Amino acid sequence: MSTTLFDKLGWRYATKKMDPSKKVPQEKVDQIVEAVRMAPTSSGTQPFRLFVITNPEVRAKIREVAWDQAQITDGSHLLVFAAWDDYSEERIDDVLHQMEDERGKNDMLTGYYDNLKAAYLPRDAATNHAHAAHQAYIGLGFALAAAAELEVDSTPMEGFDPDAVDEILGLKEKGLHAVTLLPLGYRDESGDWLAGMKKVRKPREDFVTEIA
Amino acid sequence: MSTTLFDKLGWRYATKKMDPSKKVPQEKVDQIVEAVRMAPTSSGTQPFRLFVITNPEVRAKIREVAWDQAQITDGSHLLVFAAWDDYSEERIDDVLHQMEDERGKNDMLTGYYDNLKAAYLPRDAATNHAHAAHQAYIGLGFALAAAAELEVDSTPMEGFDPDAVDEILGLKEKGLHAVTLLPLGYRDESGDWLAGMKKVRKPREDFVTEIA
Repeated sequence: MSTTLFDKLGWRYATKKMDPSKKVPQEKVDQIVEAVRMAPTSSGTQPFRLFVITNPEVRAKIREVAWDQAQITDGSHLLVFAAWDDYSEERIDDVLHQMEDERGKNDMLTGYYDNLKAAYLPRDAATNHAHAAHQAYIGLGFALAAAAELEVDSTPMEGFDPDAVDEILGLKEKGLHAVTLLPLGYRDESGDWLAGMKKVRKPREDFVTEIA
Repeated sequence: MSTTLFDKLGWRYATKKMDPSKKVPQEKVDQIVEAVRMAPTSSGTQPFRLFVITNPEVRAKIREVAWDQAQITDGSHLLVFAAWDDYSEERIDDVLHQMEDERGKNDMLTGYYDNLKAAYLPRDAATNHAHAAHQAYIGLGFALAAAAELEVDSTPMEGFDPDAVDEILGLKEKGLHAVTLLPLGYRDESGDWLAGMKKVRKPREDFVTEIA
């Protein structure tokens, strides 16, 4: 019987120590990657790209600019979520054309993306990148949920120098900017101060307001 | 046998037409809400709040400022993700104190949140709100994944006037700002132009870069 996301909400935690001897099976990495690829994004633009890094030297370089967080090299895989630095006519047309190829051309679709271009292209790059970054965070949410469901440990990270990571991965030339990191691996419970700790969340009555 | 997230990645879509005669069972809404509450956030701050709206008048008002998107009133529940407008000493201390209550006091924890305050409090509100909004998007990702797994339809929405939604829900006084909407309900397949359409995503080789 498969495990569900709901069974795993309490199991998952931001793993502070991973066991470097354990590798996440490729099949599970592929499922997590597919969940990110299939995640919804605003207007279906998917304005971010996913990097899956196993290379030890690259991960060692990233660790150096990420507060020396060991999971980056102790885990078996490192996911990097890199959002578009800006929207462009070409990028939006690319989305439209793929939709036309796969669904057929229609005026509503063309009109929708004409309006999108009219709305996005006059905005500054920072505003557009911020919007793209939001979609990357939806992807991150799907990755976290997928990993938990597969009993793969992970650690969402914002604690790194994004410009330095961009440099290491050549993201600027690709029109991308790193927004989050997600090491994948398996917890080393004996070495992880957080592993045994109670998971702390705001009580439902403080976090949720029902308007009936 | 439970369905898994992976079975549902292709099943879910941004529902364009919901059947107003169908209500999502409370048990499923609760599971989706719990997934959002249990979602990880940066430094465990949970810098956003969730509104669960069934009230028809409130949803009608929100629909008016959300491009008249019918799912808002046709669905049975409307989730509103509202992120903190800013970080404050009080808000961060609140997080720290809850952790101390539940895990016990320790210097590392206190030191961590001292550093967080030193980093966040000098920043302007817009920067802090943007960071909080990112965490709300992780929550949105969990909600989308949870809904799909429960075979509940949903429609993530950015197309609304956030200031107007803030006004309707009195969010400003609560130090919150609406960032996304998520109607929950059941698709009306005969009335939904998107229901039969192929799901379009960038092919894996375009979306993912492996660095081995």
